[in-house]
Amino acid sequence: MTKPRRFGMVIGLKEDRAKDYVALHAGPGVRDLLTAAHIRNFNIFVTRMPDGKLYEFAYYEYWGSDYEADMAAMMRDPGHVAWLDVCDPMQVPLPGHTSWAEMEQIYFNW
Amino acid sequence: MTKPRRFGMVIGLKEDRAKDYVALHAGPGVRDLLTAAHIRNFNIFVTRMPDGKLYEFAYYEYWGSDYEADMAAMMRDPGHVAWLDVCDPMQVPLPGHTSWAEMEQIYFNW
Repeated sequence: MTKPRRFGMVIGLKEDRAKDYVALHAGPGVRDLLTAAHIRNFNIFVTRMPDGKLYEFAYYEYWGSDYEADMAAMMRDPGHVAWLDVCDPMQVPLPGHTSWAEMEQIYFNW
Repeated sequence: MTKPRRFGMVIGLKEDRAKDYVALHAGPGVRDLLTAAHIRNFNIFVTRMPDGKLYEFAYYEYWGSDYEADMAAMMRDPGHVAWLDVCDPMQVPLPGHTSWAEMEQIYFNW
């Protein structure tokens, strides 16, 4: 199996925006931009943590050959900028972060 | 693409057992049992959440045809029972749970 880079990310989700966020993600959103950026298998899960608040957890794989360049190109895309303008106000980054926080991977088994 | 079932799970990790847990997962553990149970792409991430505590987040895929039967067989395996006897005391299930808690998937994009 070719080996992609695997990412786990976390961010808070505002209680009163959760329904809107989920509905928004049922649509096309930035699916085409993710694909163009060689991001595959993008999963988002939502759960209520022991502090009583909602959090999102994302898992995705990067199958391209220049992650930084692909991410930079996506971040510059007007469609992606517009998407973040909608999503960002619905989310609560973890302390010390301005968006999704990357988690440390400690296990992988194919 | 064939469509597997995709799972996101969460559980607490005891601060004073985190190093042991990570070291344990660098070894063979129950990798053979996961494979036999048709579980693929098993990833565990660890992060410190805003409540100051460590949590583990797992993402995996089930590529078989009878999830309940495969899980039941794995849970009965003496090697898996022994593995849980070691791992369980290192973890802190979320309130209302006795082990990993399943998260709600709200987004997927291949």
